[in-house]
Amino acid sequence: MAPPDVDIFPHATGKAAELVARHESPQEIVFWSGWFCPFNQRAWIALEERGIPYQYKEVNPYKKEKHFLEINPKGLVPAFEYKGKALYESLVLTEFLEDAYPDHKPHLFSSDPFTRAHQRIWIDFITKSVVPAWQRLLMAQGTEKQDAAREELYAAQRKFAEQVKGPYFSGEEFSLVDIAIAPWIERERIVTEHRAFKSTQVSKEYVTYVGHILSRPSVINTSSDQEKYQPIYDRYLRDEAQSEAAKAIRAGRPLP
Amino acid sequence: MAPPDVDIFPHATGKAAELVARHESPQEIVFWSGWFCPFNQRAWIALEERGIPYQYKEVNPYKKEKHFLEINPKGLVPAFEYKGKALYESLVLTEFLEDAYPDHKPHLFSSDPFTRAHQRIWIDFITKSVVPAWQRLLMAQGTEKQDAAREELYAAQRKFAEQVKGPYFSGEEFSLVDIAIAPWIERERIVTEHRAFKSTQVSKEYVTYVGHILSRPSVINTSSDQEKYQPIYDRYLRDEAQSEAAKAIRAGRPLP
Repeated sequence: MAPPDVDIFPHATGKAAELVARHESPQEIVFWSGWFCPFNQRAWIALEERGIPYQYKEVNPYKKEKHFLEINPKGLVPAFEYKGKALYESLVLTEFLEDAYPDHKPHLFSSDPFTRAHQRIWIDFITKSVVPAWQRLLMAQGTEKQDAAREELYAAQRKFAEQVKGPYFSGEEFSLVDIAIAPWIERERIVTEHRAFKSTQVSKEYVTYVGHILSRPSVINTSSDQEKYQPIYDRYLRDEAQSEAAKAIRAGRPLP
Repeated sequence: MAPPDVDIFPHATGKAAELVARHESPQEIVFWSGWFCPFNQRAWIALEERGIPYQYKEVNPYKKEKHFLEINPKGLVPAFEYKGKALYESLVLTEFLEDAYPDHKPHLFSSDPFTRAHQRIWIDFITKSVVPAWQRLLMAQGTEKQDAAREELYAAQRKFAEQVKGPYFSGEEFSLVDIAIAPWIERERIVTEHRAFKSTQVSKEYVTYVGHILSRPSVINTSSDQEKYQPIYDRYLRDEAQSEAAKAIRAGRPLP
């Protein structure tokens, strides 16, 4: 996620702050994080789920540390610093954890190649359909556009929920598919409050799934106090945000 | 790729037809293919590079086989039928080959987790930047829009080429990064002829890279006679195509 354009609260709060406090000592992975960013939360949930040691460092979007910019010139978060080099892109980071820590359990993909491919198909669906629809609804101005965006989001979520085995996407095991969608479920209260979104309008299966995602400890523990997100989302709701994600939605381009 | 909307020549020709003829007998993987589709060519190149046995079946977009639609209701190609079930999405298929055939050499990703993540970052860049820019240039109407689209494509390709170690993206070993971009390099003659594209305007490094990609046997052998692509691309060049990819570009949505 590129630099946001709003005066962002400078650090995690609530449950997320408790987690940060437990990850201050140096480790092989330095997690350069932006507490408010949904893509960032994906990487954080994956670290937590797999029990991989990491050092948490909050990136101040306005005053990035020199060292961080040296290894990661674009300054994107989430980023991992690993042996002095940086990696970024939330889904790349989660795959990296699978490859670099093969002995850490549990894994976030099925060990069966076919099931794994099926999981990738639905991660791709979240990326191409659910997240952009969510973002369009957030930024839509006027009843007509909001109604259209909401219906589009409902359709994408409904299609996704039809594939959920329960309690999680692939059954009993929490996977990268659940991680890929979780941050937007966690933020659903924003579109519920401001865009007349109702998860009951998606499907019964979806509501059940949302319940399971929202009670997952890794999701709860990587979330900050709800009111701290509001000023960030207010700019999106007024379609005034100037982040790269906001510009992409406006220009009809893929999310960065 | 969703059904194209043009009277498509019904089967592969030239080098690709020779390859099809060598893959007629039943195998564990049935490759349901559309000879003309660039996404499809990715999966085909991967099968060839890794020497994985497959049975080739051309999907007639207007008259899809009943069995194919039973296992793959959306009728998308490329698709693999594996033990009676279907998988689709070109990059998911190439990853599946890695997972399902771990003992087949060569692999299409580095064995080093960091390098592998770096490869994934640039595959993502091809998906989000190079391919959509290429498609926009193809469909752009009028000098002004074409000039803008061409510059955007040059910029994306230039950025990509800066990362190429040579001869291939990651050095001596041909990888999934090369496969991800190869079909659009193979089709560059279309934008060269009709959209004033000049690879020399990208960078010297890019021109060298293109030379290596175009002389790779797996790329040559999965390509049909050049004139057979023309009627398909003519509809795009006139912005009359009604494929899902064409509609997505027009609507400013991610490519399906």
